Amino acid sequence: MQTDTAQAPAGASPQGASYAPTGRTVPTRARDRAAYDHETVHAILDAGYVCHLGFVRDGAPVVLPTLYGRVGDRLYLHGSTGSRPVRMAGASGGSAGPGLPVCVTVTHVDGLVLAKSAFHHSINYRCVVVHGTAHQVVDEDEKTAALDALVDHVLPGRAADSRPGNAKELAATAVLRLDLHEVSAKIRTGGPHDEPEDLELPYWSGVLPVTPAYGTPIPSDGLAPGTPQPAYLPAH
Amino acid sequence: MQTDTAQAPAGASPQGASYAPTGRTVPTRARDRAAYDHETVHAILDAGYVCHLGFVRDGAPVVLPTLYGRVGDRLYLHGSTGSRPVRMAGASGGSAGPGLPVCVTVTHVDGLVLAKSAFHHSINYRCVVVHGTAHQVVDEDEKTAALDALVDHVLPGRAADSRPGNAKELAATAVLRLDLHEVSAKIRTGGPHDEPEDLELPYWSGVLPVTPAYGTPIPSDGLAPGTPQPAYLPAH
Repeated sequence: MQTDTAQAPAGASPQGASYAPTGRTVPTRARDRAAYDHETVHAILDAGYVCHLGFVRDGAPVVLPTLYGRVGDRLYLHGSTGSRPVRMAGASGGSAGPGLPVCVTVTHVDGLVLAKSAFHHSINYRCVVVHGTAHQVVDEDEKTAALDALVDHVLPGRAADSRPGNAKELAATAVLRLDLHEVSAKIRTGGPHDEPEDLELPYWSGVLPVTPAYGTPIPSDGLAPGTPQPAYLPAH
Repeated sequence: MQTDTAQAPAGASPQGASYAPTGRTVPTRARDRAAYDHETVHAILDAGYVCHLGFVRDGAPVVLPTLYGRVGDRLYLHGSTGSRPVRMAGASGGSAGPGLPVCVTVTHVDGLVLAKSAFHHSINYRCVVVHGTAHQVVDEDEKTAALDALVDHVLPGRAADSRPGNAKELAATAVLRLDLHEVSAKIRTGGPHDEPEDLELPYWSGVLPVTPAYGTPIPSDGLAPGTPQPAYLPAH
């Protein structure tokens, strides 16, 4: 299935570059919604911090929400050294182990699409699906950079504004790396596709935009007096 | 793996009932965050409408965002008759086919947990993971009720306020049913677990609440003049 996958560079993406479609990244339906260019794929990945990590255990699928970050053409997934996918990916000493076949999916819901007919109801969304083999990161420098990327995906600028992990914490944390080779985006935008004969029906139709929103930050009880609220938190 | 799964009733849940934990619904880590009672599981499922559907294709995992609804102890997943998981679940005539082993995961992010140390950063979330075999719904009445549930998950009350599907539309739509037997919830709440020796560090720590928000509804161009905005849409 992966024979016609393009070899994407690890690091910066060339301008206008695309991931080569493969048998499993070309959707069976709505192919006009699919995109493969790096810019679109990276923008969708960078807009989120929770992916859904799929792997196979005893022949059956498992899907777990997982924190992730991106550095160039590599996706990094957070785990603990004891977590199931990390143990299944395998690693010992300086070796990354055999790796774990995974599918990582990131989805953003942008709107509820209300059509006059129940059938044409839909969702506006941006989604990226990555197929590949995840390997545990064993290089300490790569691991540190990956963990910074994970924290900065949650809130840009936060990694530099917190205490870095010490040796014990780094040892308890595992990071899986998934190279972005076999990747596709799928996007739906716009209003409902009402049937012409439905247009006169009395039902409301249109789009209800959905956006993630932040509430008022809740400081810890243990916050040192006078600690300012950082600029990367929303002002209220 | 499924031998010690409780037989959950299809329909109403008895007061205080729980799903029996199994080998794959007991987490390897943070077991105190796991819950199995129907009330908790159903509330998490009912608060969403997009799940991540995992299945195995050619031995490799696939994870796709999918619309879903719940009726009692059954989860219904939306598909088209041509979609991959629907074809893999199989169905012909009045028979539901062999079914497709799946894992369905629903995740809500409730907050970003910012600790003084990078290591203790986390996410507040509510998550449900369902393991089982999905079958295509072949009974027309069950299919109609399932599609109503799907639309009402997106916006409660909307199913009754739109044109029901006609025979052609129903034939083009497929619904997969997944009985809620092997199910678990996982929940994290509260603030960061800062190390005592970190408390005096100058970094902000606390929780940034995350809530889904709706923008201003955008009516279709084809909306009949005088069509009122329904009460289930947010007022702006």
